[in-house]
Amino acid sequence: MSPKLIVLLAIFSLQCLLALASDPDPVQDFCIPNPKYGAIRTARFTILPCKNSSEATTDDFVFSGMKSAGNFSETGLATIPVNPANFPGLNTLGMSFVRADLKAGAINPPHFHPRATEITHVVQGSVYSGFVDSSNRVFARVLEQGDVMIFPRGLAHFQMNVGDKPSTVFGSFNGQNPGSQKIPTAIFGSGIDDELLEKAFGLSPKQIGMLKRRFDPKRVS
Amino acid sequence: MSPKLIVLLAIFSLQCLLALASDPDPVQDFCIPNPKYGAIRTARFTILPCKNSSEATTDDFVFSGMKSAGNFSETGLATIPVNPANFPGLNTLGMSFVRADLKAGAINPPHFHPRATEITHVVQGSVYSGFVDSSNRVFARVLEQGDVMIFPRGLAHFQMNVGDKPSTVFGSFNGQNPGSQKIPTAIFGSGIDDELLEKAFGLSPKQIGMLKRRFDPKRVS
Amino acid sequence: MSPKLIVLLAIFSLQCLLALASDPDPVQDFCIPNPKYGAIRTARFTILPCKNSSEATTDDFVFSGMKSAGNFSETGLATIPVNPANFPGLNTLGMSFVRADLKAGAINPPHFHPRATEITHVVQGSVYSGFVDSSNRVFARVLEQGDVMIFPRGLAHFQMNVGDKPSTVFGSFNGQNPGSQKIPTAIFGSGIDDELLEKAFGLSPKQIGMLKRRFDPKRVS
Amino acid sequence: MSPKLIVLLAIFSLQCLLALASDPDPVQDFCIPNPKYGAIRTARFTILPCKNSSEATTDDFVFSGMKSAGNFSETGLATIPVNPANFPGLNTLGMSFVRADLKAGAINPPHFHPRATEITHVVQGSVYSGFVDSSNRVFARVLEQGDVMIFPRGLAHFQMNVGDKPSTVFGSFNGQNPGSQKIPTAIFGSGIDDELLEKAFGLSPKQIGMLKRRFDPKRVS
Amino acid sequence: MSPKLIVLLAIFSLQCLLALASDPDPVQDFCIPNPKYGAIRTARFTILPCKNSSEATTDDFVFSGMKSAGNFSETGLATIPVNPANFPGLNTLGMSFVRADLKAGAINPPHFHPRATEITHVVQGSVYSGFVDSSNRVFARVLEQGDVMIFPRGLAHFQMNVGDKPSTVFGSFNGQNPGSQKIPTAIFGSGIDDELLEKAFGLSPKQIGMLKRRFDPKRVS
Amino acid sequence: MSPKLIVLLAIFSLQCLLALASDPDPVQDFCIPNPKYGAIRTARFTILPCKNSSEATTDDFVFSGMKSAGNFSETGLATIPVNPANFPGLNTLGMSFVRADLKAGAINPPHFHPRATEITHVVQGSVYSGFVDSSNRVFARVLEQGDVMIFPRGLAHFQMNVGDKPSTVFGSFNGQNPGSQKIPTAIFGSGIDDELLEKAFGLSPKQIGMLKRRFDPKRVS
Repeated sequence: MSPKLIVLLAIFSLQCLLALASDPDPVQDFCIPNPKYGAIRTARFTILPCKNSSEATTDDFVFSGMKSAGNFSETGLATIPVNPANFPGLNTLGMSFVRADLKAGAINPPHFHPRATEITHVVQGSVYSGFVDSSNRVFARVLEQGDVMIFPRGLAHFQMNVGDKPSTVFGSFNGQNPGSQKIPTAIFGSGIDDELLEKAFGLSPKQIGMLKRRFDPKRVS
Repeated sequence: MSPKLIVLLAIFSLQCLLALASDPDPVQDFCIPNPKYGAIRTARFTILPCKNSSEATTDDFVFSGMKSAGNFSETGLATIPVNPANFPGLNTLGMSFVRADLKAGAINPPHFHPRATEITHVVQGSVYSGFVDSSNRVFARVLEQGDVMIFPRGLAHFQMNVGDKPSTVFGSFNGQNPGSQKIPTAIFGSGIDDELLEKAFGLSPKQIGMLKRRFDPKRVS
Repeated sequence: MSPKLIVLLAIFSLQCLLALASDPDPVQDFCIPNPKYGAIRTARFTILPCKNSSEATTDDFVFSGMKSAGNFSETGLATIPVNPANFPGLNTLGMSFVRADLKAGAINPPHFHPRATEITHVVQGSVYSGFVDSSNRVFARVLEQGDVMIFPRGLAHFQMNVGDKPSTVFGSFNGQNPGSQKIPTAIFGSGIDDELLEKAFGLSPKQIGMLKRRFDPKRVS
Repeated sequence: MSPKLIVLLAIFSLQCLLALASDPDPVQDFCIPNPKYGAIRTARFTILPCKNSSEATTDDFVFSGMKSAGNFSETGLATIPVNPANFPGLNTLGMSFVRADLKAGAINPPHFHPRATEITHVVQGSVYSGFVDSSNRVFARVLEQGDVMIFPRGLAHFQMNVGDKPSTVFGSFNGQNPGSQKIPTAIFGSGIDDELLEKAFGLSPKQIGMLKRRFDPKRVS
Repeated sequence: MSPKLIVLLAIFSLQCLLALASDPDPVQDFCIPNPKYGAIRTARFTILPCKNSSEATTDDFVFSGMKSAGNFSETGLATIPVNPANFPGLNTLGMSFVRADLKAGAINPPHFHPRATEITHVVQGSVYSGFVDSSNRVFARVLEQGDVMIFPRGLAHFQMNVGDKPSTVFGSFNGQNPGSQKIPTAIFGSGIDDELLEKAFGLSPKQIGMLKRRFDPKRVS
Repeated sequence: MSPKLIVLLAIFSLQCLLALASDPDPVQDFCIPNPKYGAIRTARFTILPCKNSSEATTDDFVFSGMKSAGNFSETGLATIPVNPANFPGLNTLGMSFVRADLKAGAINPPHFHPRATEITHVVQGSVYSGFVDSSNRVFARVLEQGDVMIFPRGLAHFQMNVGDKPSTVFGSFNGQNPGSQKIPTAIFGSGIDDELLEKAFGLSPKQIGMLKRRFDPKRVS
C-alpha cells in the first residue's frame, strides 16, 4: 500500500475524528489515536487515528511535557496548551489543560475560550486574574500561590504577574478542545474591515492602522 | 399570605429557575413562566415561575414584539433580543432570537455569544458580516437580502450596513440565553487594570484612558 | 488511486460523518465537508468529507440559495430545507433552517421534527399556525408578518396560508438534521398494515385503501 | 404554617422541579421527590419536592405496580406508563418505562415519543411491531416472546397483537418523561382547523367531521 | 481492491465509529453498521461501518438472540449483553440492554457501569438486588417477578437469586456502551500493586495473594 | 417571616437546586448560591439559594481554602474536595476539584467517580497512580512532580506515595459533583448481604466478618 494512500486514508479518518468527537459522555473507556497509521501535521494540529484498545499503554495516559515552562514570547508569557493533539489520551474524555508561566510584569492578554469553563490554579507567584461577565462587570483580584479561580465558559478573562518573580499557573478545561481567541489579535490581527473597527472603537484610521500593524499575523507569527 | 412572602417565594423559585434551566433536551413539552406568582425585575431580567401546563394559551407561544425596529442607539443600531425574559414560551426549549436594524453605515461591533451558535438571516439591506476563527482568520463579506450566514458558537463576529438604506437582520440561536460580550465595552468599559490593557494592546496610558472614558458604563448607559 | 477506491473511501468516511456528528457542543470552530474527496449522492443526501480548516473560505459559511421560493408542489407548498447536505458550513454546529412559501390557501400538513425545536418567523403573509401538545391540546392562531412562533421539540405542528397572497416563512432549528415526518404520508404512504390502520382510525377497509392510494409514494414521489 | 402555604410552596418548587430536570447526566446519586411537603395532582402529573438523601429508602427505588396488566380500554389496550410521577426514584436519572398489554387483535395506534428512544421487549405473545423513518419507509414484522425491537427517538411506531392470546410488552425509554402523541387523537381530537385537515388528508368535510367526533376528547376521555 | 486494504479501511472507519459515537441526541433516524465492508473482531468487539440508510431492513432493528439464557459460568450466572456489537441497530441511539439468568443461589457480583443508569426488570424468580450510594449506604431487598428497580448511573450494584428456581432479569441502559467493572475482578484480577491493596483492604500479603490467584485473568478466562 | 419558614423555603428551593443542576452547558454566566436566604447543613452538603447576579463579588469566584493540606486520616491521606458546597462559584459551571496530600507510604484506595473524568496533576512528590479499564487491565506507574495523568469517567483508580516525603496532587473534574465510591468501604462498609460477598470474593464468613468490622461506618468515621 503506497504511502500516498496511507496519507489519504489518514486524512479521511482523521478529519472525521476531528470533526465529530463530542465533549458529552464518551461511549467507551478511552480512545487513543494511533500513530501507526500516519498523521496529519497542520500548523495547529497533529491528529492520529485510534489504537485498538488492547494496544494502549500506561504512557498513553500520562503527560510529562510540562515539568518546566514552555518557550517565552517577547512579552514574557510561555504557555503549553495540552489537548489530544499533544496528549492523545485526552481524546473523547472531555478535558484538557494548560501550563502558563509569566515573567515579572508579563500578561496573558484578554481572551476567551469558546468551548470550555476554566479552573486556574496558581502554582507559584502573585497573579492579578479576572474575567468580565455579560453585563460588563469585571471580577478581578490578585491570586497568591495555592489560590484557585474559575472563569465561566465563554467569558473574557486575563492574567498579569504582579509579583517580582516568575509565576506559574495550571489551568484545566471541561472540554478537549476549548479553543481560544486572544482579543487584541483576533480583532486587530485578523483583517476585519477598517471602517468597522474605527466605528467600533472610536479610533482614527491612523490609530487603527497602527494597531493592525502591531497585530499583523505576518509580524507576530 | 403577605405580598412580601410572595415576593420572597418568587425569589427562591425564580432564581432556581434561572439557575438551572439547561439547554439540553427538555423533559416536558414546554414550561411557561407564570405571572400569577409575581416577578423579579432586575436591570436585565424579568423572570417568572411556571404555569400549570393546562393554563398555557396560544399567546404564550407567539411573539409579536418585533414587527418594527427597536430603539436606535446614537450609533444607528437597534436590537430586540428575545429570550424567556420577554418571550416566556421559549423557556427550556433551547432557542432564542434577535432582530437587529442598522441605519446606513451603522455597525454591530465585534461581539460573541458565550453559549450559542447564531444563524443570521438578512431580511433587508446589504450587510457586511463576518466572524474570526480560533486561528485569527476572518471570514467576511457583504450579504444581500435573503442571504444567511452562520457564526459558530463562541466566536467573535460583527456586521456593518454598507448599503444606503436601513437594513434588518433576524438572528436565531441554539440556546435560550446565549449571552453577549461586546468586545469594545467588555474590554474598555468594565474596569480591567490599566497596565494590563496598555500591555495587551500596546497603547499609551493616555490612549487607554481615552478608550475607557468612551466606554465608561456611566456614560454609555 | 482509482476512482472506485476514492468512492469507497468516501463511503466509509462519509457514513461515519453522517453517523456520528452530534448536536451537542462542537469540539472545534467548524468542520466544512470537503468536495475534493468525492461525494455520495443518495435520494436524500449529498455528504462530503471535511476540509482542512485552513482551506475554508467565507463562501462556506454563507447560504444564498433561498432568496426566492423553491419549487411549488401541486398543493401550493414550496420548501427549501437547508442542512449540512446543501449548506456544508452548518456541519457540527447544531443548527439548520428552512424557507417555506405557501400560495393562498395552501397548507403545510401536520408534521413533526424528531430532533429539534423550531422557531418560525413569518416574513410575509398571514399564516394560521399551531402545534399540538402531549395532552392533545392545540395551540394555534393566525400569525401576521413579523410574528414569531415556537414549536417545541418533537410535537406535531402545521401551517395554512389564510391570506389572499403568497406567504413566506423562515424556520430555524436547534439541530443540524431535525428530520421530519409528514403525518398523512408517514401513516398512509409507508405501508403500515391495513388492519392496524382501520382499527387506529376507525375507518373502513375501503376508506383506508383510498387514503393509501392518495399517499402512495410511487404516486406522490 | 398553613396548609395553603404548604401548597403554594409546593407549587413553586415543584413546577421548578418539573421545569428544569434535564435528561443529561445527573449531578448527584439520585433525588427522590419528598411527599412530606405536599403534592400537585393535575390531570396528568403528581409531582413532589425532593427528600433529603439520608431519608431515601430502598422502596424509593423499587416499583411493584406493574405485576399485572393495567385497566383495559374498550379497544383492548392497557398501558401502565412509569415515570417520576408514579415512581419517584426515576427522577433526574434519565430513564422511564411502560407495561402494555394487548388483548387478541388489539392495537397500540401509531404514536411517537418526542423525547426518547424506546426499547420494546415482548414478554408474552405475538406482536406485529414497527416504525416509520423520515423517508416514510416502514420497518415492521411480528415479534415473538423474547424478541426485542428498537424505535428510534421521535419516530412514529405501532403494535398489534396478532396472536390469539393476550400479549404483554415491556418498553424502556432513555428519558424520564418521553411524552407521547397518539397520532389519530392528536390530529383529529385536538381541534386543528377543519379546512387544514381536509386539505392535509384529502378527505371531505363530512369525513373529517366523523373522525373528529370519534376522537373528541369529551367522548374518548 | 485487496482484502488487506479492505481491512485497513475498516480499521480506520470503525475505530472512528467506535471512538466518536456519542450518547446524546442522534442526528439522524438511525445508523446501521454495514457488514459489506468487513469487520473488526477483537476479544470484545465486532464493529462494522454503516449501511446506506436505504439498505436497512426490519431485521436490523429486531434482536432475537436472547429468547433463552446464555452460557452459564461455573458460578451459575449467564449474561447476554446486547449493544451495537451484536445488535447493530442500537448504534447511535443511546440505549442497550442485557439478559441475565441466575441459577438458585447464584450471584451477579458487585459491579458498576461507568456510562449508564440501569433499569432492572425481574422477568422470573426472586432476586435480592441492591446498590450502594456515594455515602456508602446500601439500598437492597428481594425483588419478585414483575418488580422493577433502578440503579443510578455509576453506582455499585449486585444481585443474588434467593429463590430455589432459576431467575431471569432484563436490564436496560440509557447508553449504547455502558461498560462494566466487576469489582472483585477489577481490583484483584487486574494487577494493581500488592502493597496498595494490602493497605486498602487491611489484608495480609498472603490473603491478597490468594485473592489475586482467584481472580487471575489467565485462570478466570 | 419566621425563621422556621425561612428554613422550609430553603429546603424547597435548595433541594430543587441540588436536584436539577445539570453539568451540560450553563444557560447564564454563573449562579452564586445566596447565603442570605439560609442554608441546609447536612452531613455532607451545605447548599444555598442563588444570589442576584449583581450581588456577586470577585470573592465568589476565588477559592483560597487549599493552600495547605487538609486533616490527615490515620492512614496518612488528607483530601480537600472542592465543589459548590464549599466553593459556591462553581455552581452550574460543570467543574470541581480536589487537593490530596499523602504522607510517605500512604494510599488513596481504589475508588471511582460516577459522574466525571479526572485530571490529576502531581504538584509535589512521587506517586504511583493508575486506573483499571472495563476489560480489567491496569494502567499504572509512578508519577513525578509536574506529571499529569487522566482517569477516564467512571473507572476505578488509585494512588500511593512511593517517595519518602509527603506528596501533593491536584485533581480537576469535568462535573460539579463527581461523586466518589471508595471500593473497600462501599463494598464492606455498606451492609451488603454477607452471603453475596462471600460468593463474590470467595472468602469465608469469618474473613467477610473481619472486613465488615474494619470498614464499619460507626468505627471508620
